[in-house]
Amino acid sequence: MRILVTGADGYLGSGLARRLADTVPGLSRLTFTDRQLVGEATRIAGADLIAGDLTQADFLDALTEPGFDIVFHLASLPGGQAEAEPERGRRINLTMPLDLAWKAAEKRPGARFVFASSIAVYGDTVTDVISEATPTAPGLSYGAHKLMTEMYLSDLNRRGELSAISLRFPGLVARPPTESGHGSAFMSQMFHKIGAGEEFLSPVPASARCWWMSRAAAVETLLHASTLQAGAPTVVLPPALSATMAEMADAIAIAAGRTASVRWGDDARLTRLFGAMPEIDASLARGLGFAGDADLQSLARAALSGA
Amino acid sequence: MRILVTGADGYLGSGLARRLADTVPGLSRLTFTDRQLVGEATRIAGADLIAGDLTQADFLDALTEPGFDIVFHLASLPGGQAEAEPERGRRINLTMPLDLAWKAAEKRPGARFVFASSIAVYGDTVTDVISEATPTAPGLSYGAHKLMTEMYLSDLNRRGELSAISLRFPGLVARPPTESGHGSAFMSQMFHKIGAGEEFLSPVPASARCWWMSRAAAVETLLHASTLQAGAPTVVLPPALSATMAEMADAIAIAAGRTASVRWGDDARLTRLFGAMPEIDASLARGLGFAGDADLQSLARAALSGA
Repeated sequence: MRILVTGADGYLGSGLARRLADTVPGLSRLTFTDRQLVGEATRIAGADLIAGDLTQADFLDALTEPGFDIVFHLASLPGGQAEAEPERGRRINLTMPLDLAWKAAEKRPGARFVFASSIAVYGDTVTDVISEATPTAPGLSYGAHKLMTEMYLSDLNRRGELSAISLRFPGLVARPPTESGHGSAFMSQMFHKIGAGEEFLSPVPASARCWWMSRAAAVETLLHASTLQAGAPTVVLPPALSATMAEMADAIAIAAGRTASVRWGDDARLTRLFGAMPEIDASLARGLGFAGDADLQSLARAALSGA
Repeated sequence: MRILVTGADGYLGSGLARRLADTVPGLSRLTFTDRQLVGEATRIAGADLIAGDLTQADFLDALTEPGFDIVFHLASLPGGQAEAEPERGRRINLTMPLDLAWKAAEKRPGARFVFASSIAVYGDTVTDVISEATPTAPGLSYGAHKLMTEMYLSDLNRRGELSAISLRFPGLVARPPTESGHGSAFMSQMFHKIGAGEEFLSPVPASARCWWMSRAAAVETLLHASTLQAGAPTVVLPPALSATMAEMADAIAIAAGRTASVRWGDDARLTRLFGAMPEIDASLARGLGFAGDADLQSLARAALSGA
């Protein structure tokens, strides 16, 4: 079995690469790709490491040539960067995923295609609870492009050309401080600061309600999604935890054995984009066997451990 | 003012071309494009006629080079054909509209972009009444691609790169018998057959409820949409008439001074795709000043007259 991971040098991708190396049967062949490969994926024995630019047709053709049974498509330009560089955003977050899906289907009809979508598809949606059925209203090009890719994949799935699933992930915590371009970077920063016993200057108020998921939970979500069949729903909202910044800060402090020192801000734009989330209805995902982080405590422990 | 019409040789496009020639101020410059131009658009004095393939980057570049203040994007591959030829469908109904919108915005930021979308975006939606807020569920690639283009345009509108509006049109009547590829062709055929006093073999039952709009009403809808500003809604469901096949057959017979002779069929697929429409809630469109056909009688008269 051939498995492809795009964005394999990223935060989620490197976690998935490590987990796949521990998990998949011996005869499977793992291919990791990213613009450059310098992280954990490079330490996995026997994996094919192919660095290059997926937005270049020649590279995409060559990469997909062998045909893959499972594709994990994680590569993307973060939302903040995509908003600032619309041409790059369009190329990386829209044109490329559509081309990759098309090529994957062409080379291996019916391949399982697992797409890391985003809760950014909901955008400015105002509602008491969000599920897959909630109307979408992307507030950023990032979310619009994710949503368009979801639709494209659902259509290829309907036609039987791929067996596709799109997972609407929240911002993952705790991304390394070096990662930039994510509007939600402040959510990860809170873990690093409180974990290190430093003061955290939050751009959003204590009452801002965000959705939270550790990388470890996201990796399990991806793996489980790859085992579902074509008849399963094509768009799934994985079980994130819905909690206020203050609740999360407390959980981090307990997990780290620290006292949380936070100064709360009131950035209206960030609060609207990331800190105005309602409750989550992840009953569809739970019914399909998806599990998220068990609770804020275990999420905090996972995030602080770097898992 | 420069105005571009794509698909100008098609049924809707040629009607719009004729109407624009009668309507727009003398200093406006009209450009009509299609793969070939042989119909009404060629008879409009002073218009630029540019035949070519919009899916070819060189042609698209050259065509959009002058910059247009208003673009009417009507060109598409009909749903039935697109379903049978997925590569062509993807190229014409998805990649090309996205590229055209991008180029139009690049050459003339803030240009008004009027997109002929389709009620095919609703697909298998089951509900008592449909409005812009109704969740979408395209049952064909045609509808999925229209929906993706709507989203793309809404995002460009949000960014101020275009002033965009997508109009969700029903199948228009009565398309010429020579036009093929539309799954809804039977709806137009009913006008031609009853109008000619011939027996009509309907593939769907008398009780099948369809949405109806004449070309004349669709042309007025496009013109009105072009006058709205960027702050207006970016997705509009124009006021179509919701009526059963039997009701429409009666109205055609009266308008034509004929007796309707119809044998009703029971094609489940066509009934599901086109004959299972609920009521329409076009209050948003009406509030914006859009008007459709006044009633079934005037629709039948317009359709039979070729208007």
